[in-house]
Amino acid sequence: MAKPVLTILTGNREVTGLDTLRQLADVRLAADADELAAALPGTEIVYLWNYFADGLQQGWERADALNWVHLPAAGVDRLLFPELAASNVTVTNARGIFDAAMAEYALAGILYFAKNFPQARLNQAERRWQHFGTSNLAGTRALVAGTGSIGRATARLLRAVGIETDGLGRTARDGDADFGAVHASADFAAVAGNYDWVVLVAPLTEATRGMLNADVLAAMKSSAVLVNMGRGELMVQCALEGMLRDGRIRGAVLDVTSPEPLPQSSPLWGLENVLITPHLSGDSRSHLPAMAAQFEANLRAYLAGEPLENVVDKQLGFVAAPAGR
Amino acid sequence: MAKPVLTILTGNREVTGLDTLRQLADVRLAADADELAAALPGTEIVYLWNYFADGLQQGWERADALNWVHLPAAGVDRLLFPELAASNVTVTNARGIFDAAMAEYALAGILYFAKNFPQARLNQAERRWQHFGTSNLAGTRALVAGTGSIGRATARLLRAVGIETDGLGRTARDGDADFGAVHASADFAAVAGNYDWVVLVAPLTEATRGMLNADVLAAMKSSAVLVNMGRGELMVQCALEGMLRDGRIRGAVLDVTSPEPLPQSSPLWGLENVLITPHLSGDSRSHLPAMAAQFEANLRAYLAGEPLENVVDKQLGFVAAPAGR
Repeated sequence: MAKPVLTILTGNREVTGLDTLRQLADVRLAADADELAAALPGTEIVYLWNYFADGLQQGWERADALNWVHLPAAGVDRLLFPELAASNVTVTNARGIFDAAMAEYALAGILYFAKNFPQARLNQAERRWQHFGTSNLAGTRALVAGTGSIGRATARLLRAVGIETDGLGRTARDGDADFGAVHASADFAAVAGNYDWVVLVAPLTEATRGMLNADVLAAMKSSAVLVNMGRGELMVQCALEGMLRDGRIRGAVLDVTSPEPLPQSSPLWGLENVLITPHLSGDSRSHLPAMAAQFEANLRAYLAGEPLENVVDKQLGFVAAPAGR
Repeated sequence: MAKPVLTILTGNREVTGLDTLRQLADVRLAADADELAAALPGTEIVYLWNYFADGLQQGWERADALNWVHLPAAGVDRLLFPELAASNVTVTNARGIFDAAMAEYALAGILYFAKNFPQARLNQAERRWQHFGTSNLAGTRALVAGTGSIGRATARLLRAVGIETDGLGRTARDGDADFGAVHASADFAAVAGNYDWVVLVAPLTEATRGMLNADVLAAMKSSAVLVNMGRGELMVQCALEGMLRDGRIRGAVLDVTSPEPLPQSSPLWGLENVLITPHLSGDSRSHLPAMAAQFEANLRAYLAGEPLENVVDKQLGFVAAPAGR
């Protein structure tokens, strides 16, 4: 049987596990959008190794044999252009790969504020040994918006250190395995005031865009801290800026912004109660090999005619949860 | 029966639970060392509510009825002057009160470096969105020097988030309930190179003074981070400064220094890979009422002729562990 044509969008990043992929498929390498478009005729599988790169939509007309697109990322919002969403092409993502790192990132952000390290930095810059207030995690409450694999891993970690953790999902439900309660996203403003920590890891869809809006922000405790690991577009960023500047919420840890990179002119850079990282919360020492191994396993399943793992529901915009979750 | 005379060294700090203590004892309040000395004749119990204050040694000659000294702190190193150590006076401490807060502080310090928040701060100051390396906790290893209640709480928390955690104590032992292995302090330099995180919470005694010396520092991984929540005198601080300045270890989170307050001239203040907090790792929203409740319970035991909790072994310099630990 002929090997399928697999086109890899490298974005000039070294592709982990390339030798193995060459054994399994007829590999074409595309450094950028133009090369991807040129490689699409006859391509059966597209592997967006550099998941920050674009190009598939531009070349869509030439995708005459495409069956499957794999994006080794958690969020597929940038990928799901209308033609792809309407097509029969299967889309898979890297569900699971980033869970542990992102859960740890959320906890790091929470502890950074609980132990008031921002104040420690300010005092240290002035060589000032002066007592300041800190707090404990025990008895505090977190709300995790997003009940997919990352949200679940986050909830498990936060609960392991004594934080009472609820979820925010499409529909309210009790009896969840990982969350105390799950509230409906529609009730975000109604419940936000009950939490010390609000963590955003929801997929970006038309239902979640701007979910952290002025009403939600106004409802939050003035002592509350936001951690956004999902997408900048989940927040009404200008409203957040105002609340942070005025001290109406305690602080924010932002791994994602809108746009990215965050422009130098953004006032967020200058706020002492904001910590910004450049979309790296899913990183770990092992995420590249893990991403490569996950795709290779799916490619072997594809070649064997078996079902693929982590198939994205292109209408929902994410991998639908297994039954019972 | 006459109430015993209880002298409280307040250091001009409001004494939590004072009304109840007045019902149980004949309370004298002493704001400072001079007032403490003046109040000592006839005093049966001394309660060093402001545990940063001194004065008992200066007034020792006048302590003609003293039976019991309570220090609501974990470390009793500053209190145990020779005359007190040689006397029949019972010394108790606040074992247990600070466990949860200090365990969280250690984890906060570890995550601060694992997620490379120091680099995030540097980039943010320059409004620079630029990727940098971070790491995961899973698979990393911590060594906690000090196997008392704080060290144990720290080990349990670090293990709960996936860090393999060993202890360093007076004697090596296996099969500990909270630690993977417990190494002997004498082997600190021999084992230090196996750990990503080194946490100091040992009591300061003649056996532990300067335990983190140049040999231990030289043996540590260049990627290792130190968290000191014990006493500044546990480290050879000038050796640590040099290692941090030269990047021969990754960083340090210091809640204690030698001396305290840390002088403005100390080079530690200016190092980007050091985070300094002013001896607050045991703080929490509830530590003052918890300290008050703990003393009150011991006072009721004293009045009832029952054994006191958390009696310090004045030769060892800390509360000896319960049998089996």
